[in-house]
Amino acid sequence: MPSLDPAVAEIRLAVRTALADLPEGSTVIVALSGGADSLALAAATAFEAAKRGLRVAAVTVDHGLQDDSAAVAERAARTAADLGLDPLVVRVEVSGDGGPEAAARDARYRVLRDAANDLRAAAVLLGHTLDDQAETVLLGLARGSGAASLQGMAVERADDDGVRWLRPLLGVRRATTRAFCAAAGLDAWDDPHNSDDRYSRVRVRDRVLPVLEAELGPGIAEALARTAEQLREDAEAFDEMIHETIEDIVEHAEAGISVSVAALAANPAALRNRIIRLVVDSEFGVSLTRTQTVEVARLVTDWSGQGPIDLPGCSARRQGGRLVFTAAGR
Amino acid sequence: MPSLDPAVAEIRLAVRTALADLPEGSTVIVALSGGADSLALAAATAFEAAKRGLRVAAVTVDHGLQDDSAAVAERAARTAADLGLDPLVVRVEVSGDGGPEAAARDARYRVLRDAANDLRAAAVLLGHTLDDQAETVLLGLARGSGAASLQGMAVERADDDGVRWLRPLLGVRRATTRAFCAAAGLDAWDDPHNSDDRYSRVRVRDRVLPVLEAELGPGIAEALARTAEQLREDAEAFDEMIHETIEDIVEHAEAGISVSVAALAANPAALRNRIIRLVVDSEFGVSLTRTQTVEVARLVTDWSGQGPIDLPGCSARRQGGRLVFTAAGR
Repeated sequence: MPSLDPAVAEIRLAVRTALADLPEGSTVIVALSGGADSLALAAATAFEAAKRGLRVAAVTVDHGLQDDSAAVAERAARTAADLGLDPLVVRVEVSGDGGPEAAARDARYRVLRDAANDLRAAAVLLGHTLDDQAETVLLGLARGSGAASLQGMAVERADDDGVRWLRPLLGVRRATTRAFCAAAGLDAWDDPHNSDDRYSRVRVRDRVLPVLEAELGPGIAEALARTAEQLREDAEAFDEMIHETIEDIVEHAEAGISVSVAALAANPAALRNRIIRLVVDSEFGVSLTRTQTVEVARLVTDWSGQGPIDLPGCSARRQGGRLVFTAAGR
Repeated sequence: MPSLDPAVAEIRLAVRTALADLPEGSTVIVALSGGADSLALAAATAFEAAKRGLRVAAVTVDHGLQDDSAAVAERAARTAADLGLDPLVVRVEVSGDGGPEAAARDARYRVLRDAANDLRAAAVLLGHTLDDQAETVLLGLARGSGAASLQGMAVERADDDGVRWLRPLLGVRRATTRAFCAAAGLDAWDDPHNSDDRYSRVRVRDRVLPVLEAELGPGIAEALARTAEQLREDAEAFDEMIHETIEDIVEHAEAGISVSVAALAANPAALRNRIIRLVVDSEFGVSLTRTQTVEVARLVTDWSGQGPIDLPGCSARRQGGRLVFTAAGR
């Protein structure tokens, strides 16, 4: 028996680990674009799911953004069928605010969520790799909004609809998925968007990460991924602490919401600032910048009778031992 | 009256803010290399301190690493005297492990600490700028040890000897310090080490940051500095939480130290992993990697009767409801 290609072994193990606690007989969905990442994921999932008695559907979203997108999607579906998966192609109309990248992503996740609900899938597997994670961290760093933007993508996440999203390849290098495809004789599709340098992600991949590797030594992508993992833990810990206390310190009123100054003062800045951001976001749908957040926090930590602070969509003032947030214009 | 140069106004305001709560009549030390950053800091401090009745000493460390280092130090001292500061030049022998950069820094801080103690200084002012902070974050990112390595330098910090370190220029761009020197007619020294690309910091400054700015848009340095500020808050919050509980959950024994498994299990991963790292570091002087820390944490979160885990300088095992760390070879 020939020895197993190391790339195939690594990716199968990653998938096996991700599938380990799914109930036998359940269905999983693989998000399949036809690129090397998702193709390797689909092939490894086909192999591992067969051993576990799982059913696997491969969902390919045709965004219709390129002339040959229907053909690409059909080819991915045929490959999925060859691998023993149930192929499903869904054509979407991409439109919306925030640029084509964001609109395509939103449409894609909507299709996957619908498919997960329709098939009562136990999980949706996404092909993001360690390289994608490193790129996400660098893009977050450019935004400068701290731990929240640096924590990257989660290995596992359950959303509000009960869909469980898994990223088995988040610890696997992208090159390994290409090696998998080569070893398995799978012909991966190269998305032309992946070399279109109008996308900031493409510039990070092609120009920023190589410079970081060259100047600071190899292992940068892994270092970024480790950072993301640790910052995600930090964010989860803060979320947990906030959710344990938020109901006790917040009061809803007709024109807005208020928070106890004493409670905010008793918390360290990391929690105080997160509570302020959470309250404003949940009540007014506004994401405060760091500068705005710190200015509001000064009503607690550096009080000298300041007047109300105007914020996008609302204003904040200190009144009777409480921080009071009121909708703009009230 | 001619209007004040904006660079001079910005830096004087930053220094004024930093000095605001120092008692009148006290002494402050400015660390003066003679470069634009520290020269602008020294000049602005001279101006602001005179208004506040503070005495200012300018401490210049001659590391003796370059042929003309004595002349450079003397020139900085003369400029300091011209600005009305008390100049002090200290010659040090730089040697030690960890490379010349780290050894020079250690020697410099030792001199400043000694001077602060001798002069009973209320604070030591350091000339680090926003650009230095951004470079520090990127260097930390390359190490990949999470929030701890990304939090950069503190605006204000008191060390165990009671010396108070202030960085008034941490929100000021380096270019602004050069503009200050130009406007004030101060002739700044260009440290040749600052263009020696054997130093990773120099490579970050000259090659990495410009690429990030070009590919991800301007404002990267500011974004990195904001990230550092927020992660520093996070780290301080975790430190506070850990110090509130650590004594209750740790027990010292002859051969090592142990921690309650139940207490570790009750904490979120962010705190659990930090407690494990802190315990091993404080007991054995060993800094665990992320991978080692997570493996130890599995003795708590994923217990299936694993054997002891060998770590640098010690080993960890689970025994009788406790995580027991024992010195290597015992």
